[in-house]
Amino acid sequence: MTSPFATRTGKSNDEIELGTDFAPKFDEKGLIACIVTDSDSGDVVMFAYMNAESLQLTLETKEAHYWSRSRQELWHKGATSGNVQDVIELRTDCDQDAIWIMVRTRGATANCHQGYKSCFYRSAELKNGAPHLTFKEDKPLFDPKDVYK
Amino acid sequence: MTSPFATRTGKSNDEIELGTDFAPKFDEKGLIACIVTDSDSGDVVMFAYMNAESLQLTLETKEAHYWSRSRQELWHKGATSGNVQDVIELRTDCDQDAIWIMVRTRGATANCHQGYKSCFYRSAELKNGAPHLTFKEDKPLFDPKDVYK
Repeated sequence: MTSPFATRTGKSNDEIELGTDFAPKFDEKGLIACIVTDSDSGDVVMFAYMNAESLQLTLETKEAHYWSRSRQELWHKGATSGNVQDVIELRTDCDQDAIWIMVRTRGATANCHQGYKSCFYRSAELKNGAPHLTFKEDKPLFDPKDVYK
Repeated sequence: MTSPFATRTGKSNDEIELGTDFAPKFDEKGLIACIVTDSDSGDVVMFAYMNAESLQLTLETKEAHYWSRSRQELWHKGATSGNVQDVIELRTDCDQDAIWIMVRTRGATANCHQGYKSCFYRSAELKNGAPHLTFKEDKPLFDPKDVYK
């Protein structure tokens, strides 16, 4: 697959930050951070990584593709469960080293493998000086044991 | 500074993902990814990294602290400009390797050094098969040249 992305070589900071060429910066492992929000609620539902191939596929198909660091493979989210994430909009930041996609998740709305709508289902606060987590979602939308066998 | 965070050593996946101990996973550089959203609009305004010290300071002061990778130093956002980010809520994700903070930015609402409200001021789309960026914010809220001298 030929890379469709612009090269960063020879570009000034301003050309990257204020230009219209899409020249994403992949890290030393070939990955770029990807923030995923629900396009309706605005909540952050996932944080994942993309490589060049998954970013290209996401742009082409308008379905979220990631790079699974644990499985070391291309990951078409929802390919087996049917809960595909349709990408409403894809953005990049000033220095183009992060991606933000706004998605609508088909079918069941859980985006987290633990069955929660968002992976960010716990908040952290200090209690008597020690950090403590509190659950912000009442209960999972599905039981992971029923879905991942 | 003694680390107030729980250790991950000896914890099962479920203990980390479904427990109430805050045991953040810092990468090999001692950093954890941090997504920053505007608590009013819900928009993603920044993506940055924290080390253990900046995460602890963020919890203690409820003002966003990061680790600046370019300057290799602790970064209290807004310390010089006055545009401090007050942290309304701090969350972590299932495997505790990412942070999401919801902030309200004091004074001028620009969070990006380019003067835009959000660093994510451009969207990417394919045009005739080639990715192209489009500006989504009309103009910067300030001229970076006036602020960073």
